[in-house]
Amino acid sequence: MSNKITDIDMRIMKLLSKNARLTYKELAEILGTTRQRISRRTDKLERNGVILKYTVIPNYDVLGYVHVILGITVKPSVDLDEVLNVLKEDENIKIIQRSLGSHSLVLHIVGPKDMKELEKIISEVSKKIPGIDKLDITFVTETVKFEVL
Amino acid sequence: MSNKITDIDMRIMKLLSKNARLTYKELAEILGTTRQRISRRTDKLERNGVILKYTVIPNYDVLGYVHVILGITVKPSVDLDEVLNVLKEDENIKIIQRSLGSHSLVLHIVGPKDMKELEKIISEVSKKIPGIDKLDITFVTETVKFEVL
Repeated sequence: MSNKITDIDMRIMKLLSKNARLTYKELAEILGTTRQRISRRTDKLERNGVILKYTVIPNYDVLGYVHVILGITVKPSVDLDEVLNVLKEDENIKIIQRSLGSHSLVLHIVGPKDMKELEKIISEVSKKIPGIDKLDITFVTETVKFEVL
Repeated sequence: MSNKITDIDMRIMKLLSKNARLTYKELAEILGTTRQRISRRTDKLERNGVILKYTVIPNYDVLGYVHVILGITVKPSVDLDEVLNVLKEDENIKIIQRSLGSHSLVLHIVGPKDMKELEKIISEVSKKIPGIDKLDITFVTETVKFEVL
C-alpha cells in the first residue's frame, strides 16, 4: 500500500469525523467491505498521521471552563520552533497551531471561569513568547456548528 | 441523577478526549467501575450536550485541503442569530463559534488548496455577513499540539 489517500480512506475519514466511535464492523457494513480492510486502512491512516487523534468535542461551559483563543502575531525575526517547544509543555495550552496570515500562532486555552485567574494564565503564556506584535483574545461563548470533514 | 457533572463524568470525559474510541469495557477497567455505569453516565453526557461530538482530528494537508480560520468582528447593531442561521447551511464552513473579545464570530473553512478557488469561497462567506468591521484570515500550516481536556 502506498501513502496515497484512497477513496475508501476518504470515506472512512468522513464517517469517523461524524462519529469516531463507529466500530470497524459498523464502518465495514456502511462501506460494503470487510472488517479486515477497514482495520488495515485505519491502522495505516493512524500510522501515517492522517488521523492525529480521536477525541470528544465538549461543552466547556457546562464542565465549568472557559475556552479562549489567542491569535498571536510575532515579529518576523522570532524563531518559532524554539517558542513552540516551550509552549508545548504548558498544560494550560491545549491546542497549538502554526499559521500564516493575520496570526502566526493560534493557541487555545481551556481555563477557569474566574477572570482574575484567567488573566494570570494568559499573561504567563504571553510572557513565554518573545516579540509579540499583536495579541487577539477571543472568548468562545457558543459552538453553533462543529464538523471536521 | 441530576445534571451535575460528577467526578466520574469528568474522568470519563478526560479519557475520551485522549481516545474517543475507548470501549465502555476499557473505560470501566481503567476507572475501576462497571460497564453499566460507564454506559449510563456516557448516555447522560451525550443527552445533556456535555459531549457535542465524537470526532477525528485529521491532518488536512495530507488529505489535500487547506484549513482557514476567519476571525470576524461585526458592528454591534448586527443580529448574529439571523446570520448564524444562514452560515450554518454553508457546507464550506465546518466550525461556527460565537465569541466575545477580539472577534464576535470564529469560522473554520476547510477548502481546496487552489488559492483562486479558496478566495472565492471566503469572499462568498463574507458576503453573507452584513456589517463586518474586521476580518482576520489565518491559514493553519501545522497542528503542533491538540488536546481537549
